[in-house]
Parts: sequence; C-alpha cells; structure tokens
Amino acid sequence: MTRMPLLQPAENGQRYELTSPTAMPKAGAFLWNQGMMIQATCRGYAVAQFMQPEPAKYSYAPNLEAKTFMQPEQNYYAHHPGRFVYVKDEATDQIFSAPYEPVRAPVERFVFSAGQSDIRWTTEHLGIRVEMTLSLPTHDVTELWTVKVTNMTGRERNISVYPYFTLGYMSWMNQSAEYREDLGAIVGSCVTPYQKVADYWKNKYLKDKTYLLCETKPTSWETNHQAFEVQYRLSMKPGEQREFRFLFGPAYDDAEIRSMKERYLSKEAFDRCAREYAAYIHRGRGCLKIQTPDPALDNYVNNWLPRQVYYHGDVNRLTTDPQTRNYLQDNMGMNYIRPEVSRKAFVTALSQQEASGAMPDGIILVEGAELKYINQVPHTDHCVWLPLTLEVYLSETGDYAFLDQRVKTENGDNYTVFERFSRAMDWLLHERDERGLSYIAQGDWCDPLNMVGYKGKGELAAHFRAGADEVNKAANKHLWDGDWFARGITDDNSFAILSGATDAAQRAKMMKEIEKQLYTPYGVVMFAPAFLGMREDVGRVTQKHPGSAENGAVYNHAAVFYIHSLYSIGETDRAYELLRQLLPGPSEEDYLQRGQLPIYVPNYYRGAWHEFPRTAGRSSHLFNTGTVSWIYRVVLEGLCGLKGDGAGLQIDPQLPEDWDTMKISRRFRGATFNLDVRRSGGVKEVKVMRGSETLPAARIDNIRAGTTYDLVVLVP
Amino acid sequence: MTRMPLLQPAENGQRYELTSPTAMPKAGAFLWNQGMMIQATCRGYAVAQFMQPEPAKYSYAPNLEAKTFMQPEQNYYAHHPGRFVYVKDEATDQIFSAPYEPVRAPVERFVFSAGQSDIRWTTEHLGIRVEMTLSLPTHDVTELWTVKVTNMTGRERNISVYPYFTLGYMSWMNQSAEYREDLGAIVGSCVTPYQKVADYWKNKYLKDKTYLLCETKPTSWETNHQAFEVQYRLSMKPGEQREFRFLFGPAYDDAEIRSMKERYLSKEAFDRCAREYAAYIHRGRGCLKIQTPDPALDNYVNNWLPRQVYYHGDVNRLTTDPQTRNYLQDNMGMNYIRPEVSRKAFVTALSQQEASGAMPDGIILVEGAELKYINQVPHTDHCVWLPLTLEVYLSETGDYAFLDQRVKTENGDNYTVFERFSRAMDWLLHERDERGLSYIAQGDWCDPLNMVGYKGKGELAAHFRAGADEVNKAANKHLWDGDWFARGITDDNSFAILSGATDAAQRAKMMKEIEKQLYTPYGVVMFAPAFLGMREDVGRVTQKHPGSAENGAVYNHAAVFYIHSLYSIGETDRAYELLRQLLPGPSEEDYLQRGQLPIYVPNYYRGAWHEFPRTAGRSSHLFNTGTVSWIYRVVLEGLCGLKGDGAGLQIDPQLPEDWDTMKISRRFRGATFNLDVRRSGGVKEVKVMRGSETLPAARIDNIRAGTTYDLVVLVP
Repeated sequence: MTRMPLLQPAENGQRYELTSPTAMPKAGAFLWNQGMMIQATCRGYAVAQFMQPEPAKYSYAPNLEAKTFMQPEQNYYAHHPGRFVYVKDEATDQIFSAPYEPVRAPVERFVFSAGQSDIRWTTEHLGIRVEMTLSLPTHDVTELWTVKVTNMTGRERNISVYPYFTLGYMSWMNQSAEYREDLGAIVGSCVTPYQKVADYWKNKYLKDKTYLLCETKPTSWETNHQAFEVQYRLSMKPGEQREFRFLFGPAYDDAEIRSMKERYLSKEAFDRCAREYAAYIHRGRGCLKIQTPDPALDNYVNNWLPRQVYYHGDVNRLTTDPQTRNYLQDNMGMNYIRPEVSRKAFVTALSQQEASGAMPDGIILVEGAELKYINQVPHTDHCVWLPLTLEVYLSETGDYAFLDQRVKTENGDNYTVFERFSRAMDWLLHERDERGLSYIAQGDWCDPLNMVGYKGKGELAAHFRAGADEVNKAANKHLWDGDWFARGITDDNSFAILSGATDAAQRAKMMKEIEKQLYTPYGVVMFAPAFLGMREDVGRVTQKHPGSAENGAVYNHAAVFYIHSLYSIGETDRAYELLRQLLPGPSEEDYLQRGQLPIYVPNYYRGAWHEFPRTAGRSSHLFNTGTVSWIYRVVLEGLCGLKGDGAGLQIDPQLPEDWDTMKISRRFRGATFNLDVRRSGGVKEVKVMRGSETLPAARIDNIRAGTTYDLVVLVP
Repeated sequence: MTRMPLLQPAENGQRYELTSPTAMPKAGAFLWNQGMMIQATCRGYAVAQFMQPEPAKYSYAPNLEAKTFMQPEQNYYAHHPGRFVYVKDEATDQIFSAPYEPVRAPVERFVFSAGQSDIRWTTEHLGIRVEMTLSLPTHDVTELWTVKVTNMTGRERNISVYPYFTLGYMSWMNQSAEYREDLGAIVGSCVTPYQKVADYWKNKYLKDKTYLLCETKPTSWETNHQAFEVQYRLSMKPGEQREFRFLFGPAYDDAEIRSMKERYLSKEAFDRCAREYAAYIHRGRGCLKIQTPDPALDNYVNNWLPRQVYYHGDVNRLTTDPQTRNYLQDNMGMNYIRPEVSRKAFVTALSQQEASGAMPDGIILVEGAELKYINQVPHTDHCVWLPLTLEVYLSETGDYAFLDQRVKTENGDNYTVFERFSRAMDWLLHERDERGLSYIAQGDWCDPLNMVGYKGKGELAAHFRAGADEVNKAANKHLWDGDWFARGITDDNSFAILSGATDAAQRAKMMKEIEKQLYTPYGVVMFAPAFLGMREDVGRVTQKHPGSAENGAVYNHAAVFYIHSLYSIGETDRAYELLRQLLPGPSEEDYLQRGQLPIYVPNYYRGAWHEFPRTAGRSSHLFNTGTVSWIYRVVLEGLCGLKGDGAGLQIDPQLPEDWDTMKISRRFRGATFNLDVRRSGGVKEVKVMRGSETLPAARIDNIRAGTTYDLVVLVP
C-alpha cells in the first residue's frame, strides 16, 4: 500500500491538504475579515482577535494573558484556546476528539484542509467521521462553524457529540456563563477590568460577552469558566449523516446575539456567507499568473502570495497604529492588487508627517488610538520607506500627477506629496553623525541611510543624489571591512548593492562571504555568528532566540532585500535559489523541518543552522510580515522582469539557468499581458515579438487599457 | 474500616493535614521570606514570586502572562506552573506523579501537610512512597526541595524518578534552557522584554535565569521551553529509601547559581535552613494564647492568625508600594507582634504625607518604585486609617511620647506625629460635599468620614469631636433610610455603630435587618442583593462575580468591622458567631464547601448564598488581606476584652453564653498575664482576683515589665 502524501494541493491549488495530525503540530491557516482574524492549527487550537477598536479576544487563555503585539512562535499548551468536537460511543464509552486535540486519539483518517476562504478538518475514528468547517462573514465578527457527523459503519450507533469551545479566563473583574433558552446560546459574561474611572468610560461599550449560538437545541450543556460544551445524543442509522451549525463570537448584549442569530445561523446564511467571502478574497487575487517548471512556486505566486499581500493591505494587520514602516510596505504590496487603496494610504501616512519632515513611528488609523508597544520606540528609518514604496505606486499606475497633490497635516502645513518626500529626505540627510552616517536612535531597523530607488528629477535629484553618494562614501569608509559590510547581511548589504555603494569587486567579495557564512538550506541567515544579549559596543540591541528573528534567523525580510539586490545586478540563479527558499517545500523533508504549509511566508525561519540543526528552518508561524510585498515585487520586477515606468512596461525576464520556458500573465494599467518566455541560443539580449512583429525594444509603450498583449519573449 | 478524617491538626496544631487530593483541589498553603513568597496547592501547582525589586517570576505560565496584583480565585489549568515528581515502574511501564497532578493516578495514600515553616506531601502508589518537602531560607530567593522515595514492597524494584519543575514561557524576547555539567543544574535563560531603551537599563540586572540545581547527578535530563525534567534510574531493595535535594529559583548569572549551590545544596544546609526558618517564623508568634471550648479557634488564634498577621507586617505583601490603607492596617496587626516595626512604619507613612494633610494612595517602600494598579486611583479614605491604627500602637505600648516625635517630609515640612494626624483629620473634615458628607473620589473604600477611636485631648479633641458629630448627623440625615444605612453592611454600618452615629433604636433595627438580609452560613455578605456593573446613580463601581469580593461576597474585612462593632456594644453572642465564620470548619461539610484549610483567612468567601448556593462559601484563596489585623484586634479587645490604655490594661472578657471558662495568656508591655476566666452567677460585673486579693477595678495599672500576673476573672 502506498503511503498517502503528507501534503498536497487540491482544487487547483485553492487548498492545501495535510494528512497527518502529528507531522507538523503547529501547522495551521488563517482567515480574516474587516473586523477580525483567526489562526487555527491542524490539531484544533485557535487564536482569534477582533477590533473594538483595539485588538480584543472572545476566546481567552486560562490565565490573565498580557496584551501585546502578535507574537511569532505561538506556544500551544493543554488548555490553549481551541475549537473541538468530542465524540463518545455510548455503547463502549470510547472517546475521541476532533480534529485531534485534546484527546489525541490514534485516528484512522485525518485531513486538515486549508482553503483560500475556509478551513476544514476531517477526522475518522471508531467508525465515525467528523467534518468541521470554519468560515467567516465578510464584515461581522463571528465564527461560522459547521460540524458534520457520519456513521461510517453498517450498524446503528448510539453516540454523543460534544462541541467544545474555549471560553477561558475572561477577566479578573467578573466572569459567569449560562445557557440561555431564550437565545439558544451559551453566553459568557465578564467586565473588562480598569483602574481609572476614565478607563471605565472607555470600556463601557466593549463587547464583554462571548456566545456560542446553536442552531440545533442541544440535549444538555455544560458551562464553566473554561469552556462552552454542548451535548447531542444521537442514534444514527448505518451511513446516516447529521449536520450542526454554530456561531461563536463576542457581543455587547442580548440584542446583538439575537441579531447575529437571525443574520447568520442557518444553512442559507452559511451558504451566502461562503459565496460572499469567496468573492471578497477573490478581489485580492493580484495582477500576476505564472506557469513555470516549479508548480509549487506557481501555486504560491498565483494563489497564496497575493492573498497574504491582500490581507496586509486590506486590514493593516488588524492594528489601529501600524508601524509606519509596515504600513508603507504593506501598501506597497497593495499597489499590485488595489492601487487606489495604496494611494489613499500614502496620503494618510503623509498627513501625519511631522513639521521637521520626520515620519512618526506609527500611523494612527482610528481616531483616539494610541501608539503602542514598539511604536513608542523612536526609529529613524521611517522616512526611507516613502520613496521605496511610492516608487511601486508610480511604476504600477503611472500616476505621477499624484506627486503634485497637496496633503495637509494637523500642524497645519500643506505641502505636495513630492514636497513631503523631499522634506523627509532632507530630514534623513540632516540626521547624521560626524562620520556622515545616519543616527540609529533606538530602533533595531537601522537603514535610514539608503536612498535606493528614489526617482527625483532635475536639481532636487542632483541634490539627493549628492547626498546619497556622500552617505555611500561614509558607509564604505566606516562599514566596509574588507570582505563584507558590518553586521552581516541585513538590509545594509542589500541596500549597499542597490544604492550603488559598492563596486563590482566589493560585490563579488561580499557575495562570496555571504554564501560561505550565511547560506543555509532554509535561506540566508541574518547574522553569523548569531549573537545574544545587548551589544552595547555596537549600540544595538539584539535579543532573540539564537536562530530566531533578528538574531541569526532566516529573517525573510532581510533575505528578500538581498534577493532584490541580486536581481538588480543580474545574479539570476542565486536570486532564484534564495527566492525559492522563502517557501516551505517542495520536498517532504523540508515541509517537516519548517513545520508549515506553503500557504504563506512567515516573518522568519529559525536559523543558526550550524549551532542548532534540530530547530533550524522551523517556521515562526507569524504571517504578519512586510516580506510578502517585497516577494511580490521581486517576482514581478526580478523573475518576470516586468516593471512599469513613465512611458510603459519594461520587459526583462530573468529565468534561472535550468528553466527553458515560463508563461506569464500580468494585468498592468488596465491592459493584459500574456508572455510566452522562451530561452533561445539565438539571442544576445531580450527580444520581444508581438505576432510576427519584433518590437524595437524590450518594452511596451503607449499601453491601451482593455487591450490584451500576447507576446513571445526570447531570452539569451 | 473507619474513614480517615479529611482534615486534622498535627504536631500540636503546628501543622494541618489533608488526606485527599480531590476533596479540595485548590486547598494549599503559603511560605514567604524576606525576598519571595510561594503558594502551593495540595495537588502540586504553585505560584511563586520574588522581589527585584518589583514582583517577578522564575516559574512562568505557558503563555505571556499579564503582570498584575495578586489575584483571588487563582485558576489552575493543565499546564499551570507546578512542582511534580513522576515515577515510572520500569518493569510494568506504569506511571504516576506526586503529589497528584498532572497524572492524577488513584493513589493509595495521600497527605498534604501544611506546616508553620514548611509544606510536605506524601503520595503512595504502585508500592512506592514519594515524600516531597518544600522549605525556604530566611532571606535568599530559592526553593529548597527534598524528595524521598521509598520502596514499600518486599521485592526489588526498578523505577525511574523524574522531578519535573515548570519553567514555562519566560519571555518573547528570548528563551533557552540547557543542562550545565559545570553547575550540576538545568539553567533556563531569557531576557526581560522592553521597548524603550530606558527600560533596558532598568532590566539589565534583573535575574533572567531560572535554575534547577541537583545535588545528585541525574541519569538523564530533558529541557524544553515548558519544564525542567531530570531522570534518576533507581534499582531499589525492599524497604530501601533514597533522598534527593534540589534548589529551584532565579539567578542573575552562573556565579550566583554557583554560590547558591555552595550555600544551600546539602543535607546540612537544608537542616540549618529549617532551624533558621522555624526561628524566623517563631519571631512572629504574637502576644496571645487562648484555651477555649473551641479548639479549632484556639489553634487558629494561637498558631496561624499571628503567622498571617506577621506575614503582612513583615514583608508588606511583597509589594514596593502597598496601598496606604493596607500598609497602615498590616502594621496595626504588627503592633501585637513587633511594635517597634509598626512604629517605624507609621513614621514611613507619615513622612509621605502631602502638604495638604492628605495621605497618598500608596506608600513607597523602595526607592524608585512607582505607584501601580489601584494606587493610581484617587481614594479619599487613607487619612482615616491613621487614628484607627495608631490607637493600637498606643494602647499596646503606652508610648504616647511617639505623638511628639517630629516627622519630616520631602516637601520639607516638619511636624510632630500628633500634628500630622491632626492635619489628616482636618483634611478629611474639609473634603466634604454640601451635605456634609465626605467625597468619595474614585476609591471603592468609601469611609473617610469615620473618626472612630480618635484619642485626642483637650481643645483639639473637642474640635474633632465636633467635626465627627457633624459628620454623623449628616450621615444620619442622608444615609439612614429607616431600617438600615445605605449600601447594606460594609464598613459604613459598622462605623456608624462604632462612631456613635446611631442610637440604640437604630442599632436594633439595623441588626435585625442585617440578620434578615445579610446572614449566610459562611458569614455576613457585604451587599444584598448582589449587584453587577457600574452603579452610575450611586457614583460607585462594583464589578465582581456575583457573590465574590465587593459584590455580595462574605467580604471578611467588612465582616470583621461589623464584629468589632458588635463587641463594642456588647452583642457578644452575635459577635462570636460571626467571628467563628471567618474561619473554615470545624465541620467537614464546611471545609469542603470553603475548599480551604483553616490556616489563614482569605480576603473573601463567595457569597450570594441565595442566588448561587453551589458556590457560596468558596474561599478566594487569597491570603493578602487587612482582615487579619482586625481579627487579632477583635479577639484581643472583644473576645478576651484585654485592651491597653494610658494607665494599664483593661480586663473585660466577653464569653459567648455557652462558654463557662476560657484561659488566656497575653504578653503586654513586657509583662505576662495569665487569666483564668470563669462564668459565675455570683457576680454582676467583671471581677478580677490576684491570688486571694480582689482588685478594686477590672484592670491592672502600673504594670511592671518582667512580672507575671496570674489572675482569676469572674464574669457574669
């Protein structure tokens, strides 16, 4: 008998299916909508948060959990919040729980199926099949659960089915839970604690109730401070199937619970939501389809990468005060999906620029929100991201008029977008030390000195170009140590290459060293050797697991910058090799080691491959990362070589040497470009043919919206 | 076969022993020293914190836990921090864990033994006995663990013993753990997270390591992010016993771990610590021994009440900024144990009095500490506690000269203690609304208007007496509603009685209503009916479990005030009845319902007896409470009727009617008083005899230190 593959795509790559509950315990998937997000693991644990307006929970940990930003490497423990279905055979008293936790019975069949717009689990044990499906509405905050139970045996079965949803420890102020006949729901109530009366008024209208609405009235129910549990006693004929629907979410009062019930708790409503949600996700499908010799990469780029980019641009990681750096990069990616959203975001960001020209550490998206956590730490790099991200908006849309739009700030000044960028650049040039290097302040993203990609024109351009050169000289003088730039790869090196701080000789040496010291089977690590603790000598704090983010990890954001720089100097093969490593697989060994499905790119993989081979490569499982926007950019501008400019679209695909062909379909400025890229010994440079006609240059100008351009592209 | 009693005192009441791991899952005991405290449950879970200088942990929850003040009703869950010993029979692969969690095997014998100066567990299963003992040094922060394993069978046994200590989730910044051959310890390391660089410098010297030092080198060890686990493979002869010692605690670096090992990790050191710690606890033994028809009460008053009072006065709940109210009351109790400590505390508190005469919300005990949590909420009652608590210092010591001591504050003013009290009283009289009632501000302890017990003299006394009368009139006018004072019992009513705001008729009515509405088998509840949520109408916030603290609970602090007031008006039987209810037992049913050993009084028992009979009476298991100082006072001044004044000691015991005798031994101003109290039909009022001589009044004046006064006291 051939073993079932551990992991495989289904429905044209719209789903990925994992067939073992033990191979990758932390592997999971995430769904989000306008008000919430939920990450669920293959074994049934879940982390959900919703906005009111700050991130809040309705399914809590068993203790008083600290409020903090979303953490990598979530720790799952016995009483971690989850959604489970217990099944008891009343004849034998045997018990198991679907999907797998907490009972962990040795199930006969298991499928965790991560879809673009829903998450499904199938568990078979004791001749009973349990199918759980989680989906979301597009706006309201509630989980839509379908639980299907099937008697797979040829005999009648008496079983009890117990959906079990974690309530947890809501609040030290108050907590109670009861089944409400009138609502058909278990309702948990608490009061958000506060100390100052001012906070009371803030908290007064928070949704402090958690409900489990049951379409079918349960036989019995159990409420305690830890979980909602309902029982259905079923006597099932051979092959019989029963279906149950539940809503699980937060509410302010009974009225809201009632209205959620009316709106959502029916087969029709579930079907409607499924359609609407699928359509919502489809709106984020992106502007690129590729077909290459690497089907896993194709599936990722065509289906999953844009979804993750869309998530970032659509809901800004469900924070009310995204870091300026993140906000700009997330919207850089959104340019490829819904540029009008990005345009608005740039205006929002610029309208919060300080009088000095500096950008704030975070962008306030909700009135009354406050800068929290890391945003209270002064960083000096935020200005850098303006040109980096605006460049993409301009090259995607060609909307250079945007530069002349006036943006007013609360402090009353009123400059054009272009002037605001200039002021930001001047601020950067001004904030430098006696060596001519930028101040680092307290942030640990220390690249304020790179002005890569800034597309100034005329005098101003000269002014900034001069400034950039000056900075590059300083960087060379102080950071270049003979074989590489200080601080390993990290974005300095990438930027060093991109910004023209390096000459060819330096680049060659750098890359040789990077290869020697930083390459691992799971990507290029950020530092080598990984170091721990405060580096007071370099005035920089790096404090993570050896091998985890910021310290010897395969920090994907740094890696993708390096890839970007490799493409920029035509290091195609190296670039592709590293690009491919951003994604788990395709080998089963690699999946197992990373412990993640190839449906998103995490912010990092554990590094320190030499020091900790057992854990190297392990995914952080955190899907919040500015990396994805850059991956999309690198795939488009680098691999596909399709980059817009003022006049039109440049065409310069960069195939890895073992590829002979690649098909690309790209939407651009309202037109569609279908490229059939072929390697040809006959050409010395990229040659583009439209029908029989060979174009004068490898580019399309005067693009007409609505037109489809079918092109054959020959590459050396 | 007669069932073993569930709970029984041992070693003369120096210990209490619980013989079931399932009867009261949350029942536990606590130990503390100058730097730490630990509360352990009978089943092996534990919460420990140490001061550096703010409360910190070295055994963490499995997730990022919020930092907050010590919570009542601790929630225990599967991965809650604990200290366990797994035992595996290598012949049969059978497993159990001592004391009971996490395996929960059906053990043959179980004893949880809470001692005055250590905590012990005995677990017998599979013919193996495991004895665990926890003790502490008097100053350093470390847990001293002894694990004894005995082969109870007549055959040789091959077993593995696995001490298992929770590490938990130390920090999102960094975490790693390894066995260190050079130290003979498993060491977990992390870095306390921070965002602002300022915090980095604060955190730099925190003890971010957790160690498990093993006296005997383990056969193997397992470290992960959740626990330290060491294995001992033992081949044991019939009856053979093996003993292991461990240190578990926090450290800054290897050097500290090494020095802890040298100082403590040996049989001799453990024995020395046991002696020193017992002596340390003995210093808190108090000034009173009683012998009454109620042995459980005797044991509590003689052994456990002073211990809990001592804990509060000795380490101030291990906070750096105790609430002024708590700090003063905790030191009120300390007057009965070490008055010199209380005297110092009064000076510390008064040295932080504001220029206006107001007392701050918290007293800073450690330089650089900040007012946290509840101390950021303005309360107006703090001044009230000055006279209430000073009164005890004066009556215990007769040190009225203290009133003339000058106390300087940081704002430079320099007043005598007496002047400072006067300024505090004037501030209270000034801070009143148009009705003549004190402002409540935001605090939920709203009794700033009671000047009970203030012992002013001459003009000033008249001035304050007048003020008090004025306030009492206002209270009557606005708070008396015909049968009781507004807001149920709570201290208002008690104070209403104590402060003379009530006349006899009012008192009678009040007590009738209190009996009718507020009495429960577990004490008098604070409110009836319990109410939830913000009472904006009364401008007061009460937000706790229905039936838990501050809302319909048997809030022991309010109860003891009421008892105090009942004694003050000679309601002896009622007073005793309620006093007895502060303590679990003596019936087994009562223990089971409260779920606690009678070794401390919690801050509250669940109330709402009519609404939630199932949970009513349940202990909060929080041993931090100002209640205990008042219990000691009530027992001394009320039940024993032994109160000091300027001239000497008043003698007026108040026996409940079904008691005929009571023996009392009390240390007072250096002398010892042994009272043989007897009920006698022959007397109309208390009659005191020393030898054959009958004293002119029921009091002893001109007390000579060092003298022993053997007295016979006849009461009507």
